[in-house]
Amino acid sequence: MRSRFQQGLDELKEKLLRMGGLAEQAIDRATEAYRTRDPKYCQMVLTGENAINEAEREIDELALDLLAMQQPMAIDLRFILAVVKINADLERVGDQAVNITQRVLDLISEPPIDLPVDIPKMADAVSTMVQRALESFLDGKAEVAEAVLQMDGIVDRMKDEAFVVLVQRMHDDPASVRAALDVLLIARNLERIADHATNIAEDVIFWVRGADVRHGGAHFRE
Amino acid sequence: MRSRFQQGLDELKEKLLRMGGLAEQAIDRATEAYRTRDPKYCQMVLTGENAINEAEREIDELALDLLAMQQPMAIDLRFILAVVKINADLERVGDQAVNITQRVLDLISEPPIDLPVDIPKMADAVSTMVQRALESFLDGKAEVAEAVLQMDGIVDRMKDEAFVVLVQRMHDDPASVRAALDVLLIARNLERIADHATNIAEDVIFWVRGADVRHGGAHFRE
Repeated sequence: MRSRFQQGLDELKEKLLRMGGLAEQAIDRATEAYRTRDPKYCQMVLTGENAINEAEREIDELALDLLAMQQPMAIDLRFILAVVKINADLERVGDQAVNITQRVLDLISEPPIDLPVDIPKMADAVSTMVQRALESFLDGKAEVAEAVLQMDGIVDRMKDEAFVVLVQRMHDDPASVRAALDVLLIARNLERIADHATNIAEDVIFWVRGADVRHGGAHFRE
Repeated sequence: MRSRFQQGLDELKEKLLRMGGLAEQAIDRATEAYRTRDPKYCQMVLTGENAINEAEREIDELALDLLAMQQPMAIDLRFILAVVKINADLERVGDQAVNITQRVLDLISEPPIDLPVDIPKMADAVSTMVQRALESFLDGKAEVAEAVLQMDGIVDRMKDEAFVVLVQRMHDDPASVRAALDVLLIARNLERIADHATNIAEDVIFWVRGADVRHGGAHFRE
């Protein structure tokens, strides 16, 4: 029979995965808002933000309860600390989705202009990173987490390329400055979500391997 | 006589304050780099980043050791969890300082142009927020932490004002697009540091009051 503590750990894991689902949904809806220019999706992200914040609080309280319940083993301690950190990162993914919708609302307020940047493609890569990071957490698989770290460089390059073309466009066509800046900032928000996925992957590795792989590469979060 | 556990908590606090000192130094040096256009300060920030990453790791490991050492009381648990979260925020303050220096290096590579934005003033407000947040942690004072939450709105407004004048400038003067964008992104990095200071203040309140004040207002981290 599983102990109450063990059941609590399972519940913590399940709650965090549900929180991850909310964060993914927020990214998808923000992307849909950009693609369709339909403010309905922006509203859905803003409403969903409350559920994410509520979930964050619950997870932190459950983590505290578990730490207080009995003397956890070292590996359980690492797991609980990893959950607390992943929780904070997922909440910030939700914040980034809100930031994206704010930019989309600004974009919608002006006539559409065509910009040579594929935001949905970038969002797709970023969303995959978050999914894989959560998968690595679900299965406790450091290899999957490591694959997420590799993907971060791809998203960084996408963001850099978007910056180059958008700055050029602002330079050549002053009328497009506002929209180009909105899109540039959306690219930046997506890159930040990728950074959070990277943080999550690092926390999974910290838990699974009991080793700290952070700061091994040259990732800077922005 | 203080127990070994209590001594460990004191050490954890001291280490976190030292980490905070490194993060503040990084902000100051990044600001100095902007003010003087002297790449020497950028180099100092990049070098200091390693010390910050090292400090983050040490603090996390000490937190784990303390959690494993004995059955902590609820208030000590909250303290340790607050330290783990503040630690992550301080490390990201360091990352933001690095991001600022990267923009400064780009600015320096072109002839200086005059832009109507007072970055040092904004940096000063942000630096004060980080200082106060650490002060509230040192003294366990929720009132000081709450004052930090109030200041966040001021920094947000400074950033918004900077955005308006810089976007106008890009629009009116295409030759200034690159520099104006660098400064705009620096303003954004500073705003993010203010968000981290806000997170730290919230974690102090979570520890001191045993109550969760997060998401009471309309802060979005970006």
